[in-house]
Amino acid sequence: MSRRVDLNSDVGESFGRWELGDDDAMLRIVSSANVACGFHAGDPLTLRRTCATAVEHDVAIGAQVGYRDLAGFGRRFVDVAPDDLTADVLYQLGALEAMARVAGTAVRYVKPHGALYNTAVHHEGQAQAVVDAVVAYDATLPLLGLPGSALLAAGERAGLRTVREAFADRAYTPEATLVSRREPGAVLHDPDEVAARVLQMVTEGTVVAVDGSVVAVECDSVCTHGDSPGAVAMAEAVRARLVEADVEVRAFV
Amino acid sequence: MSRRVDLNSDVGESFGRWELGDDDAMLRIVSSANVACGFHAGDPLTLRRTCATAVEHDVAIGAQVGYRDLAGFGRRFVDVAPDDLTADVLYQLGALEAMARVAGTAVRYVKPHGALYNTAVHHEGQAQAVVDAVVAYDATLPLLGLPGSALLAAGERAGLRTVREAFADRAYTPEATLVSRREPGAVLHDPDEVAARVLQMVTEGTVVAVDGSVVAVECDSVCTHGDSPGAVAMAEAVRARLVEADVEVRAFV
Amino acid sequence: MSRRVDLNSDVGESFGRWELGDDDAMLRIVSSANVACGFHAGDPLTLRRTCATAVEHDVAIGAQVGYRDLAGFGRRFVDVAPDDLTADVLYQLGALEAMARVAGTAVRYVKPHGALYNTAVHHEGQAQAVVDAVVAYDATLPLLGLPGSALLAAGERAGLRTVREAFADRAYTPEATLVSRREPGAVLHDPDEVAARVLQMVTEGTVVAVDGSVVAVECDSVCTHGDSPGAVAMAEAVRARLVEADVEVRAFV
Amino acid sequence: MSRRVDLNSDVGESFGRWELGDDDAMLRIVSSANVACGFHAGDPLTLRRTCATAVEHDVAIGAQVGYRDLAGFGRRFVDVAPDDLTADVLYQLGALEAMARVAGTAVRYVKPHGALYNTAVHHEGQAQAVVDAVVAYDATLPLLGLPGSALLAAGERAGLRTVREAFADRAYTPEATLVSRREPGAVLHDPDEVAARVLQMVTEGTVVAVDGSVVAVECDSVCTHGDSPGAVAMAEAVRARLVEADVEVRAFV
Repeated sequence: MSRRVDLNSDVGESFGRWELGDDDAMLRIVSSANVACGFHAGDPLTLRRTCATAVEHDVAIGAQVGYRDLAGFGRRFVDVAPDDLTADVLYQLGALEAMARVAGTAVRYVKPHGALYNTAVHHEGQAQAVVDAVVAYDATLPLLGLPGSALLAAGERAGLRTVREAFADRAYTPEATLVSRREPGAVLHDPDEVAARVLQMVTEGTVVAVDGSVVAVECDSVCTHGDSPGAVAMAEAVRARLVEADVEVRAFV
Repeated sequence: MSRRVDLNSDVGESFGRWELGDDDAMLRIVSSANVACGFHAGDPLTLRRTCATAVEHDVAIGAQVGYRDLAGFGRRFVDVAPDDLTADVLYQLGALEAMARVAGTAVRYVKPHGALYNTAVHHEGQAQAVVDAVVAYDATLPLLGLPGSALLAAGERAGLRTVREAFADRAYTPEATLVSRREPGAVLHDPDEVAARVLQMVTEGTVVAVDGSVVAVECDSVCTHGDSPGAVAMAEAVRARLVEADVEVRAFV
Repeated sequence: MSRRVDLNSDVGESFGRWELGDDDAMLRIVSSANVACGFHAGDPLTLRRTCATAVEHDVAIGAQVGYRDLAGFGRRFVDVAPDDLTADVLYQLGALEAMARVAGTAVRYVKPHGALYNTAVHHEGQAQAVVDAVVAYDATLPLLGLPGSALLAAGERAGLRTVREAFADRAYTPEATLVSRREPGAVLHDPDEVAARVLQMVTEGTVVAVDGSVVAVECDSVCTHGDSPGAVAMAEAVRARLVEADVEVRAFV
Repeated sequence: MSRRVDLNSDVGESFGRWELGDDDAMLRIVSSANVACGFHAGDPLTLRRTCATAVEHDVAIGAQVGYRDLAGFGRRFVDVAPDDLTADVLYQLGALEAMARVAGTAVRYVKPHGALYNTAVHHEGQAQAVVDAVVAYDATLPLLGLPGSALLAAGERAGLRTVREAFADRAYTPEATLVSRREPGAVLHDPDEVAARVLQMVTEGTVVAVDGSVVAVECDSVCTHGDSPGAVAMAEAVRARLVEADVEVRAFV
């Protein structure tokens, strides 16, 4: 299908004394960095340093906006009213923009984090609230999300560029959706297997689903998780396999 | 001394369910709005609405950056390391900038809030940290602060435009510094008296100190407090007296 | 039905600089105080003072536990996992207990706040999580909630004493549930009308529903809101009408 | 001097997604656990689990109260007013008490954390505020702190039991105070050296200061840090050396 793909990963998720993930390593591997914006994770100094490191490695910075929920790491649905959610997204976008700006670059795209990402797959109100923020802030910013989600649909209706994401280490259903994390086998752990799947997604546009069937997946960008044990090794394996197969790893922006 | 002065006031200091001050009224009176940035006060939707109202009344928006201390309303010194403080100021600046931007304007100046303001009068490290943030973010942004403060001195050394502030309702010492709030008589409550003092500050460059002596005060902008009972009436009295005396009330930016 | 009833109200909902409600006035009127516990509102000094005032007026202290969401004032559903929610409730219970203890009393009952209250009407998992906390902490503490709710059902199964609550200023459906706040007429504002309804609820066990029908309501305690304009006057009217009719206003504990 | 000593360590300092320290390992080694109380670290579920593990290993639970400053991990001085600080300590004490209670035990002592610990060495107002909280809450609770500190002096004046603490891995001045962390050599890293020093502190009541002189140190309890790399190995070495020398490691309560 393609000889080129973006690799993205979550970074900037430390908070004060608490460190999370190996951002320096991940920023040598990926082409796009979903940088936390302080609501679910990311103290300001961490965000500043993360943006500087991203610039150093020529990685595009995206705003990973989330719910205001440090205790829950943004992984719990919060029933935020649309007006508030739009303002929360704007606030986070601007805060990260300052960090990107002093690092000599700018926020290049937006990707919701955690529970907001999952909610925006089906919740029209919150999906629209996120889109409203991006449109108001800068309508040229692409939106990174799940193919078929309410988020990307709302983004398209609003004239935003939408970017479709696949997940390197997640099992897919025969309908090409993600197997729920509550199911056994939802998350894959073998770097070689994961790397092979990503190559197939990118070059053939397909993935083998949990029932063994081969299904189509749309994929402009592949998400590799940054905060699990073995995250760096897996991301490296994915990148190496792509490069080996002459697939260019490059930011979509 | 002058036929023109800026009036500034703190606004945007509500937080969620908790309302504070009558921003709509104050934004009809002042020429510059020190808008909270979320660390000491100001939820994102409040900030967005406050910026929109400021634009409506043609009031210049300043970033009122503070310590990350909602419980203390930014009124308690926090011994933040310079690197962290610079990043905290950048974060807040960017967050408010997003709100100003979607309201059709931009952040036009920076004023530290509460304990950060007081600390930056004498604490070289924190004063410099604030200046470093402004320089990194946008070196054309003026800094509003106390004449003679470490903050304005550091700002001048860094090439920032500095704007000197006087306080409408505060008693002055014979050395032209503020009488501590812990002293009796530190805060003035009579609108007519306050208005007359402001007029004298602006047009004659002097104020009557607590010992009855007349001392020089430098003043590009006069701060009128927004969250006390009678705040609106006092600000109105100040403005009326200035206008009556043909002093133009106009933003310094 | 009864010549005796409890009046309860939310108090302790100020936070630092932000004041909310007239707790001193309400604590002269009600017999039970739902004191915030710091997660949705209530800084520690406010909680301490509120408990002292409650003791002064011989008002029973209840723990009004809520979601960890200051920005949303606990009024937004948060999808907290049961284990976390049980721990959150324990934490809040203990924190308020310390304040009650230094005031010479103890926490006497538990009432969830805001969105947690509403969620616990139907969400079995969260209702059970709240009950689990109370059982683990002190199984003699009564639980105050909506008749027919999942919360009271779970409490009864666990052997807790459950206390049924009616709302002074809310309209009822013909099914004796509350009319949604999104509907017109959901909240009543006339103190005389509200007082008359409460008297009927208590002495006759009925209320006139929105369609004019008379429906049965179970009611050991009547909630009067504390933070709206006119709250004190309404609570006073309710209490006066009850006293006038020889109904004793007394805590249920 | 003694054939018996307490070993204490900070635990419960994870927060939501962010893990810190190996509490399970430390709770097999120490006799007293300084459990965070949620203001500088420690989400409620972490605190609950930590208390349960402490009970399992028969470790005494102390309340490690701190400043309300998650972003700074309680390591930055905050100029909290005494009334507020007393209330903050009460709140934290009660919150942790609930966790201890459902684990079948109680809070057995109080130790300030981080910047509050350091501030209470010399700041009479904050030291007294902490003591006021303990006296009001339970005047039988011992206070763990630095010998010679304002905190222990205020505790003694108030009739509290005070417990003197030495630091296993810190260098001492000839005046028997701690060498500032800003000085080179302030923190010792060799487990054998640290273990030998602790043994000498306990059995001889002395320590070799940075200038080579031997100075007296008072020591009822020895603090071993829990969150640094090698923390567990160092604590194990200390304990092993004490046990080998027939010194009993036992909680002071």
